[in-house]
Amino acid sequence: MQYYGYEMFREDIKELVSQIDFNPDAIVAISRGGLTMAHFLGIALDLRRVYTINASSFFNKVQQRIQISNIPELNGNQRILIVDEIVDSGTSMEKVYTILKTIYSHIDFKTACIFHKPTANFKPDFIVREAKDWVEFFWEVDIVKSMRERQ
Amino acid sequence: MQYYGYEMFREDIKELVSQIDFNPDAIVAISRGGLTMAHFLGIALDLRRVYTINASSFFNKVQQRIQISNIPELNGNQRILIVDEIVDSGTSMEKVYTILKTIYSHIDFKTACIFHKPTANFKPDFIVREAKDWVEFFWEVDIVKSMRERQ
Repeated sequence: MQYYGYEMFREDIKELVSQIDFNPDAIVAISRGGLTMAHFLGIALDLRRVYTINASSFFNKVQQRIQISNIPELNGNQRILIVDEIVDSGTSMEKVYTILKTIYSHIDFKTACIFHKPTANFKPDFIVREAKDWVEFFWEVDIVKSMRERQ
Repeated sequence: MQYYGYEMFREDIKELVSQIDFNPDAIVAISRGGLTMAHFLGIALDLRRVYTINASSFFNKVQQRIQISNIPELNGNQRILIVDEIVDSGTSMEKVYTILKTIYSHIDFKTACIFHKPTANFKPDFIVREAKDWVEFFWEVDIVKSMRERQ
């Protein structure tokens, strides 16, 4: 188990910004995981257009299935960065990328994540870290842990 | 000018969670400002359904105008929490609330923010702090300041 704190995240966003040689017009975050990252990146890259898309994962007997909803309206953009905090199996980001590219074939999409698992079936264009272990993100544990301690 | 850091935000999310006696099915964040807050609240309230809506503000000669886009699909929900980091003039949240309530009249919407200006024309149901001064949120300044220092 690997704790991923705010200080590390802040440095990683800077690292990501230095990697992104792409000049996007907008960001699409995969909700929930990509929300905080998209907020910070939107400000660091000075992009007001931060959109989201919902990917919910469920298990259909033996297989993991991903349902995509709330596809944003992206006309008027030329280059879009799709972001998620972690590309684990790769299924969510691969599906989001494919759906958006099918609908908006004229848009140039690139993808970014903080953590990437080498075993994933999708490799984003911009990656900060390799996920070697289970990652506990600060947005997942900082609040919940201290709420438990309070009780 | 008031700096608003991550530690304070973390405590404020806990405070907000203790206020929300509402049991929402989903969250709608106003993008960009409400994104980080919605991410943390989604986890703290155990809600996978975190949606966003875009409100962009522009000045039309003398008046501030707000354009709303990317209205999420909310059918299947009964109670929804609309969130934004700060209710300043109140125009964005008032407009988002009115549009969503017009389209989804069967849904019970409540609203939450971290900072509220007493002079705003809209008062959310759940508020943590009064905004007395210009607020510098950590997601706005932590990255940008240290990127400048690097140069």
